[in-house]
Amino acid sequence: MAQVSTERTRTADAALRARARSVMPAGMYGHLSVNLLPAEYPQFYDHAEGCHVWDVDGNEYVDLMCSFGPIILGHRHPAVEQAANAQLARGDTMSGPGRVMVELAELFVDRVDHADWAMFAKNGTVATTLWLPIARAATGRNRVLAASGAYHGAAPWCTIKLDGVTPEDRANNFYYTFTDLGSVERAFQEAGPEQVAAVFVSPFRHDAGHDQEMTDPDFARGLRALCDRYGAALVIDEVRAGFRIVHGGTWEPFGVRPDLSAWSKAIANGYPLGAVLGNDAMRVGAERIFATGSFWFQSVPMAASVATITALREENAVERMEAAGQMLRDGLADQASSHGIQIRQTGPVQMPNLSFVGDTHFERAMVFAAAAAEGGALIHPRHNWFLSAAHEADDIKRVLEATDVAFAAVRRRDVRD
Amino acid sequence: MAQVSTERTRTADAALRARARSVMPAGMYGHLSVNLLPAEYPQFYDHAEGCHVWDVDGNEYVDLMCSFGPIILGHRHPAVEQAANAQLARGDTMSGPGRVMVELAELFVDRVDHADWAMFAKNGTVATTLWLPIARAATGRNRVLAASGAYHGAAPWCTIKLDGVTPEDRANNFYYTFTDLGSVERAFQEAGPEQVAAVFVSPFRHDAGHDQEMTDPDFARGLRALCDRYGAALVIDEVRAGFRIVHGGTWEPFGVRPDLSAWSKAIANGYPLGAVLGNDAMRVGAERIFATGSFWFQSVPMAASVATITALREENAVERMEAAGQMLRDGLADQASSHGIQIRQTGPVQMPNLSFVGDTHFERAMVFAAAAAEGGALIHPRHNWFLSAAHEADDIKRVLEATDVAFAAVRRRDVRD
Repeated sequence: MAQVSTERTRTADAALRARARSVMPAGMYGHLSVNLLPAEYPQFYDHAEGCHVWDVDGNEYVDLMCSFGPIILGHRHPAVEQAANAQLARGDTMSGPGRVMVELAELFVDRVDHADWAMFAKNGTVATTLWLPIARAATGRNRVLAASGAYHGAAPWCTIKLDGVTPEDRANNFYYTFTDLGSVERAFQEAGPEQVAAVFVSPFRHDAGHDQEMTDPDFARGLRALCDRYGAALVIDEVRAGFRIVHGGTWEPFGVRPDLSAWSKAIANGYPLGAVLGNDAMRVGAERIFATGSFWFQSVPMAASVATITALREENAVERMEAAGQMLRDGLADQASSHGIQIRQTGPVQMPNLSFVGDTHFERAMVFAAAAAEGGALIHPRHNWFLSAAHEADDIKRVLEATDVAFAAVRRRDVRD
Repeated sequence: MAQVSTERTRTADAALRARARSVMPAGMYGHLSVNLLPAEYPQFYDHAEGCHVWDVDGNEYVDLMCSFGPIILGHRHPAVEQAANAQLARGDTMSGPGRVMVELAELFVDRVDHADWAMFAKNGTVATTLWLPIARAATGRNRVLAASGAYHGAAPWCTIKLDGVTPEDRANNFYYTFTDLGSVERAFQEAGPEQVAAVFVSPFRHDAGHDQEMTDPDFARGLRALCDRYGAALVIDEVRAGFRIVHGGTWEPFGVRPDLSAWSKAIANGYPLGAVLGNDAMRVGAERIFATGSFWFQSVPMAASVATITALREENAVERMEAAGQMLRDGLADQASSHGIQIRQTGPVQMPNLSFVGDTHFERAMVFAAAAAEGGALIHPRHNWFLSAAHEADDIKRVLEATDVAFAAVRRRDVRD
């Protein structure tokens, strides 16, 4: 707990940032760039263990970002590392796949209700982008529906920033409003129902910069019924939520089975892997397209994935993340109330999202995140956080000590303004 | 050498294939599927060491595919494995990049003449697809020129198979003929020169199913001049050839610098990594777009890449691949001649391509490849092969024993037909 009051130095980080500015666009790119975050955030990390990370200046943090999702059992989980190392000693990128590819495909088909087959790739965006040709080849149709504002990755067809994107990249996209079934029907009509290959949906709304929004089971069932009526594939984006909310497909408790699903992030506890799962109706689409990558057949991430999915169930990971997440949510609610600050906490407790009422420009969120980082808790002002099965009660207590100081900083700022 | 005469069993491979057929599209997908290869090819591998691989039935091969390019120093190269393991013990996919990302970007900028900055991703197709928004954002133009038939990856804009591809995916593509400068000028005019963001080119023609075609330096210089005249970016696809022909950009001996280049495959000796390098004119494009991936910031492949690029130069890898490749080419030429078989060997000796004269449907190539595999040499009937710095004279001798038997098999087939 010493970290809370110790002034943290950032000289090594600053030196690396200066070097990075000359050899990388804007010094860093993508979702891990801290260019839009408070100065208290480290850009570069030295090592990680369990739910703890250390930056290049030796500052320690309880990590509530979990590498933006991939770390679900904690860094360097023994069973996962053992499986990965054993495979690495035999071979990783060989001139063909290893046995473990079949084992992993069988495991996914076993654990995810709707899946009859699996394909593997390296990232979430590749998995979500692979939907398109599969659904198109399977249905012979080109148009797709997606929720407006939904994040499905960083490819031109879906990226949140329009620089470098052409009108043609999105000519086949039509949009509905999550979770408004009437808007889905209207989007079908706008696109022409007989031209719609697929409807894309996230298991709940978890777009950065928005409060999270849970899914009404009737919306899920209605979406399935509309897809059935019009002969379109229902495609669910499990990249961010997969295996954190449900061990299997996130909509399985609703009794709703998609035709295709995309997975990545947590499925191999930090090893690079993406997956597309499909049912038999979509198999022909997956068989017709040509999609591949030099590293798609790596055996090490697949061995890590088998170990991860196995450990997730054996260690009751969902329940443990839920317990830690609930403790965090309750603690934050109590602190906000005692500081007289109005907050909203939305989404599943395993993927916390905290926003400040009326904080349109995230000014309070930035003050809060800066003070939390300074206090040794790594969170994010605009993006949901992630719990892992490595977050124990003591870790959450340490986070809450940091957030108590952070709420006080927000309060001071509110009073000052 | 016992392998040459020993009958190889394939029962474990057959059992895995049967399982795979139920849980993967067509039992396997992408460039590593053996569905279109002779039955003598294994689909699944057990382990690999240096330039040797063992299939799941325990059969050993001298591997001339090098995992289709990634393995350039041989499997399990000590310096690369040590660097990767040391990084893995600290952290891989963390909530931000490690120091090694800066070191790697600096190394690329040092080793590749045209590069002022670097971005990293996970695969070749992602790197080649990242060109598009970068060049578009930098130039404010949307259209691109590429050589017809050129393989630039497996995304809808460029994949070799049109299933699941929409007309809009390629609406901004215009095509020229490699290496016909007049056709490039005509493609510029067809697209409208003021609308062309970039011209894509491979360092030489290495498309599967074709003899390889070296680049006339005047074509390279002419392409640069045309891009300069019309304000388009010159973009080179180093994914397949990078670091095998030249330590640096493959066109550096011509004195031709592209504006952007895409790299993957060999840059981390089998660890999953792609890179886009650019000059200062393109930096603004890279800064404006949003492109990212959950695993793009992994430290382990970056540490492996630093070690790989360092070892490539320290161990004179290009020269060693050239020597082994020349020995193979000479040996194959002698064998073909003594068997009375007309072959063509094209492209750089480090990336051998062998075709049989008049073998339009690859029938002789299939017989040859099948017999070579049976004899313990892993090659490909339609795709170029790859040498690595781990291929020693003894390995090439073993390959040549297998190809001698394979040429005899081709000869028997020719006589029979």
